[in-house]
Amino acid sequence: MHSLNLDLKERSYAIHIGQNLLNKPHLILPQLNGKQVLVVSNTTVAPLYLEQLTTNLSQAKPELVIKTCILPDGEAYKNLAHLALIWDALLTANFSRNATLIALGGGVIGDMTGFAAACYQRGINFIQIPTTLLSQVDSSVGGKTGVNHPLGKNMLGAFWQPRLVLADTEVLKTLPTKELAAGMAEVIKYGLLGDIEFLGWLEENMAGLMAGDSQLLSEAITRSCQCKADIVAKDERESGQRALLNFGHTFGHAIETEMGYGQWLHGEAVACGMWLAADLSRRLGWLSTTDVERVENILRAAKLPTLPPKTMTPASFLQHMAVDKKNIDGQLRLILLKQLGTAELVDFNDLPLLKECLADALKKTL
Amino acid sequence: MHSLNLDLKERSYAIHIGQNLLNKPHLILPQLNGKQVLVVSNTTVAPLYLEQLTTNLSQAKPELVIKTCILPDGEAYKNLAHLALIWDALLTANFSRNATLIALGGGVIGDMTGFAAACYQRGINFIQIPTTLLSQVDSSVGGKTGVNHPLGKNMLGAFWQPRLVLADTEVLKTLPTKELAAGMAEVIKYGLLGDIEFLGWLEENMAGLMAGDSQLLSEAITRSCQCKADIVAKDERESGQRALLNFGHTFGHAIETEMGYGQWLHGEAVACGMWLAADLSRRLGWLSTTDVERVENILRAAKLPTLPPKTMTPASFLQHMAVDKKNIDGQLRLILLKQLGTAELVDFNDLPLLKECLADALKKTL
Repeated sequence: MHSLNLDLKERSYAIHIGQNLLNKPHLILPQLNGKQVLVVSNTTVAPLYLEQLTTNLSQAKPELVIKTCILPDGEAYKNLAHLALIWDALLTANFSRNATLIALGGGVIGDMTGFAAACYQRGINFIQIPTTLLSQVDSSVGGKTGVNHPLGKNMLGAFWQPRLVLADTEVLKTLPTKELAAGMAEVIKYGLLGDIEFLGWLEENMAGLMAGDSQLLSEAITRSCQCKADIVAKDERESGQRALLNFGHTFGHAIETEMGYGQWLHGEAVACGMWLAADLSRRLGWLSTTDVERVENILRAAKLPTLPPKTMTPASFLQHMAVDKKNIDGQLRLILLKQLGTAELVDFNDLPLLKECLADALKKTL
Repeated sequence: MHSLNLDLKERSYAIHIGQNLLNKPHLILPQLNGKQVLVVSNTTVAPLYLEQLTTNLSQAKPELVIKTCILPDGEAYKNLAHLALIWDALLTANFSRNATLIALGGGVIGDMTGFAAACYQRGINFIQIPTTLLSQVDSSVGGKTGVNHPLGKNMLGAFWQPRLVLADTEVLKTLPTKELAAGMAEVIKYGLLGDIEFLGWLEENMAGLMAGDSQLLSEAITRSCQCKADIVAKDERESGQRALLNFGHTFGHAIETEMGYGQWLHGEAVACGMWLAADLSRRLGWLSTTDVERVENILRAAKLPTLPPKTMTPASFLQHMAVDKKNIDGQLRLILLKQLGTAELVDFNDLPLLKECLADALKKTL
């Protein structure tokens, strides 16, 4: 088991990465405030792992009062109406301010459970048990929680840190390849935005990673979480450097919003977004054609798309990008690459260049 | 103008109390992050004061983009569905993370606007301009925000501090007497829970206060805010002493929940709750009969009720009190008076005594 610490003073917490952590309830028990536990999961993950988790917890501490809340699976349900179901479950159970929420699922479950915890009685404990590669390397770490709004992704939410993150590599064995790939997009992101050496390691090992090699996955998750933890520790509330973690996401969110949440997986949209951001960086003279090919190749090795949906237009991209959370007073801001391994937050005003970049990418889809 | 500072380190802010503060936009301008401002108000307050506020702001800084969101008036609308209207307005206006929300209204508007600010793009600025006595002395100070749930009052919310509070005594001239009385309940609360000398001052001046004397009101608001600010500065997230501010509220919330929000004014329910808490304290031997009469007299002088609604039962009280946020693992906790001017948070287990106290009060309503 690898263990990292996310250093946020009184809100610090441990991230454990390894095999069969669902069978180690003693990792969880010290992080419960009281006896009341609500496990939030979805209709895909619950049949696979919910009983294993709750049985282990009950056996380790029989006096726990464990309730469950099972949501439908998918980004399409990451909204206020389904968030309210978690609150209904807490209130129906008469759970108090020292109850603990446990998120057992992917990023959607983690984000919703964290947001539910942030707002229930003005804030209760929660624990992340991410069950997808994407959520293990990204959303479960760092305390960003939220839901979507019809006018924008993750527009409603809170910064609310978990008390513990358990990333069990064993559960990745039941993860569809398409979802493994989507998670790999965020792993690749860490290489591109800040660690050229890690990018090289990924290029060497992508075949083994995509084949599900536990050792390699554990290594990749740990390095990704370490990268994220370092950035978050310096800038918890995203006033500066943390925005770099959004590399590829401004374009990616536009794709997700336009297509309707759930049509493209988040990681797929981010993969395409990273390629677009790399290509735009090239048009600014910051990356070479070879650099952009390297981005394209590593994404393809991870079975990820690089071209946007052909039904989109430059105008539909721009419309969605105008509501991005990074924008200030209507000023578009993008994360671009000064070079491979070095990202920068840029006030971006050259709309003709951006439209050209989008139009050229869209042409390739025809 | 009186000015207080609520000392919460990087979240500290000023509370200004005085006449005609709506006409002093220079107090507000330094607290705006950017150009985007959404003023949230309701159908009662907006016709009276919205234009005055927005005109003053626009004249002082013409480049401001000021939008408005007018909600229906009343506690019955303090719910998720109406909260979402504020987010819809922000997103429709394409407002970004450095927009500022201004709450212009009573406690409901302040709580909802604050909660909307806490969750919009994971947290934006907001400013409180409370227009009722109740919100000027209580909810606008201290950063408690939220909405009700059918199963409990203020069950959903966040701790989110405003950047500024402006309490304009001029607006109290249009406040109905019933609402002035409801606000006075919270003013009296500060005397009962922690300042016996202030209680004496209130007993002397209640006639003048209820007649709307501006000087006296300004003094009462300032002393109340100072009392609240002192407690909040020591315990922002209500892990201890701040719970004392809930004196009378556990019973009061039960009344509001049972009757349906909006039937009894919050302050009326709290007044009755304070009397019940005082009477329960007497049954424990902590207060004398004379003390309880003093509580009853000051509440009556402020035209406030002391008896619960006759349609309630001890059982309906207990059912609602079981979901109070102060409870831990199902343990009922109450704020009681060790003596007049000294409150204490108590783990309360003597259910027969509590039922007797409630039954005796209910008998008097027949």
